[in-house]
Amino acid sequence: MEPRPADIEGLIALMARLPGLGPRSARRAVLHLLRKRVQVMEPLARALQQVAETACECQVCGNIGTHDICNICADPRRATGEICVVEDLSDLWAMERAGGFKGRYHVLGGTLSALDAVGPEDLRIPQLVARIADEGVREVILALNVTVEGQTTAHYIAEALAPTGVGVSALAQGVPMGGELDYLDDGTISAAFAARRRL
Amino acid sequence: MEPRPADIEGLIALMARLPGLGPRSARRAVLHLLRKRVQVMEPLARALQQVAETACECQVCGNIGTHDICNICADPRRATGEICVVEDLSDLWAMERAGGFKGRYHVLGGTLSALDAVGPEDLRIPQLVARIADEGVREVILALNVTVEGQTTAHYIAEALAPTGVGVSALAQGVPMGGELDYLDDGTISAAFAARRRL
Repeated sequence: MEPRPADIEGLIALMARLPGLGPRSARRAVLHLLRKRVQVMEPLARALQQVAETACECQVCGNIGTHDICNICADPRRATGEICVVEDLSDLWAMERAGGFKGRYHVLGGTLSALDAVGPEDLRIPQLVARIADEGVREVILALNVTVEGQTTAHYIAEALAPTGVGVSALAQGVPMGGELDYLDDGTISAAFAARRRL
Repeated sequence: MEPRPADIEGLIALMARLPGLGPRSARRAVLHLLRKRVQVMEPLARALQQVAETACECQVCGNIGTHDICNICADPRRATGEICVVEDLSDLWAMERAGGFKGRYHVLGGTLSALDAVGPEDLRIPQLVARIADEGVREVILALNVTVEGQTTAHYIAEALAPTGVGVSALAQGVPMGGELDYLDDGTISAAFAARRRL
């Protein structure tokens, strides 16, 4: 007594696996697609097919794009002397949204983890070390998450880069914009206090 | 200085047009797709392509499926003597989720609207009238939304079916399951009062 054919049922199940969509909202989304076949479903199917076929990792930095060398690495306006190291594609996108950084990136693809057996080779750290000399890099900015794993990885990278003599910096830690002390965790307040600046 | 290639940007824009997804959650969904290319993006692309190619309206009832005659109309176990009239595909799915109805459907595709120039011909009402005799229908259940448009349409259909002599009923109106009077609108309480039943 299934009201929906298997194809449509399968599409709902796949949509429900996207973050932010549960079974109910996946059903609503598929209803919308079925109602707007020409205006929405067909363009979306084409776009998804296109990206699924062409998406690949940039061979230089690990960013995901549609060419062997990503938009950013291929852009002659991006400074070659600075590399911002991020854990993941989402962090690269977040840095670009914030703007301000005009250099290039290096996407690690995760953090070091003894538990999950993730070592430096799994994280493109050797490739990062190689880029320092190859591209004449002057500064590496570690934009890793402020988590135990992120900070362990930052330490490891800083040590791995020490022999190259490149400058290594990290994002400042402190009170976020709009942050109210009363709502902040103790760790953030302690870090902001320790890193206080003279005005 | 666009960090994302046009294809990926376009995919995010299309995803953001789905109900329940805004620009931010569309970005998150596409990130997820890019991270899980083989496990999620490729199956989803194939499923969407498949449904986009095969989805069509059932020639009998207007349900959307992947064949000329939908699953329900093609199912010999569904009673032919009863037709449940719904406004939209989503209402058909909701009726099927609720279970209990073992007949067939007729999807109007909207409601009558003088303002939007939607007349009976636009709503598959002539096809409904034709089905009464063709299929030997005994009862038509109007499961239209309890809105001004839905109820106007219900009235119109009841009159259009009067000459056929078929029995016409409508979903009961009253207090919903778990409904607390204090939170219900006046219209619902009035309707439930007017339709009160002797215990």
